[in-house]
Amino acid sequence: MNIVLLPKDTTDIHTITDPLTCRHIRTVLAATAGDHIKVGLLQGKLGQATVSHITETAITLTGIHCPTMPPAKLDLTVILALPRPKVLRRLILDMTAMGVQQLYLVNSYRSEKSYWQSDVLQRLDEFVQEGLQQACDTIPMTITLRKRLKPFVEDELAAIIADKQALIAHPYATKHFTQTWQATTCDSPHIGHVLVIGAEGGWIPYEVDLFTRHGCTPVSIGSRILRTENVVNVLCGHALLQASSKSSF
Amino acid sequence: MNIVLLPKDTTDIHTITDPLTCRHIRTVLAATAGDHIKVGLLQGKLGQATVSHITETAITLTGIHCPTMPPAKLDLTVILALPRPKVLRRLILDMTAMGVQQLYLVNSYRSEKSYWQSDVLQRLDEFVQEGLQQACDTIPMTITLRKRLKPFVEDELAAIIADKQALIAHPYATKHFTQTWQATTCDSPHIGHVLVIGAEGGWIPYEVDLFTRHGCTPVSIGSRILRTENVVNVLCGHALLQASSKSSF
Repeated sequence: MNIVLLPKDTTDIHTITDPLTCRHIRTVLAATAGDHIKVGLLQGKLGQATVSHITETAITLTGIHCPTMPPAKLDLTVILALPRPKVLRRLILDMTAMGVQQLYLVNSYRSEKSYWQSDVLQRLDEFVQEGLQQACDTIPMTITLRKRLKPFVEDELAAIIADKQALIAHPYATKHFTQTWQATTCDSPHIGHVLVIGAEGGWIPYEVDLFTRHGCTPVSIGSRILRTENVVNVLCGHALLQASSKSSF
Repeated sequence: MNIVLLPKDTTDIHTITDPLTCRHIRTVLAATAGDHIKVGLLQGKLGQATVSHITETAITLTGIHCPTMPPAKLDLTVILALPRPKVLRRLILDMTAMGVQQLYLVNSYRSEKSYWQSDVLQRLDEFVQEGLQQACDTIPMTITLRKRLKPFVEDELAAIIADKQALIAHPYATKHFTQTWQATTCDSPHIGHVLVIGAEGGWIPYEVDLFTRHGCTPVSIGSRILRTENVVNVLCGHALLQASSKSSF
C-alpha cells in the first residue's frame, strides 16, 4: 500500500474505519497525529493528507490536498481464461498495478466449472483497489465476466480489438511475441494491444483457432512454458516497460 | 508440471514413489499403462518414457529415451533481498522457469530477521525442481544465501558482475530500465546481466548507494511501484523475451 485510496467525493476531511487500512497506517507507516501520508482520490488525483486523530478503530485525515494526476493507463486490454480462484487476487492486483485498462475474464475448456461459483468473484473490486494502492494509481481497471466463450468471441471481440493489435499467447505458435508486437515509435502512430492468455494448461486448439479466425495472432515466447501468473506479468510487463520508457524519461 | 524430472543417473527404467508426482501422472495426465509421458534427466536431456506399471504408491517407467537438449539458460544472475517466506516458493519457481542462471538471496534492511529462520529455506531445491518441471528444463538455477549484505557487496560482488551489466531496481532512479539495458544485437557482442531487486519496501538509500559504489546502475520502470514478485517477473521476463526472440525464430 503505497497510497491510501479515499472515496472520490472526499473533500477536506475523511475518517477511515476499514481495519486493514487503519492497521497499515498505524503499524507499517507508524504514523502518529500530525504526520503526512500519501493519498489518492478514487477516479481522481494524488496528493497527501494529515493524520489528525487516531483511535483503535478509526483514523481521521484532514488537510486532504490532491493536485497530482495519476499515472497514465496502458492502452492494453487482457482477455484471460478464468484461472483458479486462489491465483485470481494476485493476478488482478498485479494487472491493476501495471496499468492494464480492461480485463475480460472468460470461460475456457480448462477453466473448471467450480471456478465460476467461487466467492472470490465477489471480491474483484477489493483486489483492484489493492493494485491501485500498490501502484499509486486511482483509476480502476474495469473487469467484465463472460461465462460463454463462443458468443463472446463471435459477438464482442471485434469491437474490443478494433484498431488494436490482438495477440493470443500459445506455446506452440511459430511467431515470437516480441517480434510480432507492434511498438509505437517516432515513425509509427500510437497502437493499443489486446493480449489473450489461457489458464493453467493453456488454450485448447479449438479455442486458439476460434480467436485466430476472429482477428488474433498466435505468438509464443520460446520453448519455456510459464505459469499463468508468470506469463501475465511478463507480457503485460513488456507493455509497461515500453510505455514507461517513452513517457517518463 | 510439463515434464517429469528423473534422477540424473537414470538409465532405461525408473520407479517413481514421490506421492505428488504419482498423483500428477495418474490424475492430471490421466496416464495408464502403455502411455508415453514427457520426461527429463536432471542435469541432462529431455525425452519420453513409457508408463509400464501403476500402483497406488508407485509408477514404473521403462523405455526412457532422452535425446533432446534442454533450453539454454539466460545469462542472468539475480541478487534478491530475502522476501517473506510465503512468496519465496513462487519467486524461485518462476525465476527457475524463466531460465535465471544464478540467484543470490541476501539480507537487507527490510528483510525481517525471522525470514532467515524459516523452514522454507530448507525447501529451495524442491521449488527449483518445480520450476524446471514447469518450463521443461533440466539444469537447476543455483541459489546462494548471504546473511550479511555489506561483506557480500564488498567482497563478492565484483566477481559476480565482472563482464556483465549490473542494474539495481529502484523506483526513484532517474534512468529507465529499458533504456539502460544493454541488449545483444547483430553489431554488439553477447552481454550478460545482473539484476539487484529489493524485498517489499525496496532498498533503503544506504543499500542503493552501497551497490552503486560497487558497480551497479540504479534504474526505474516509471512511477508505478510493483510488488517484488511482479517486478521480478517483469524484469527477468524482459531478459527472457530478448533471448527467446533471438534464439528460437
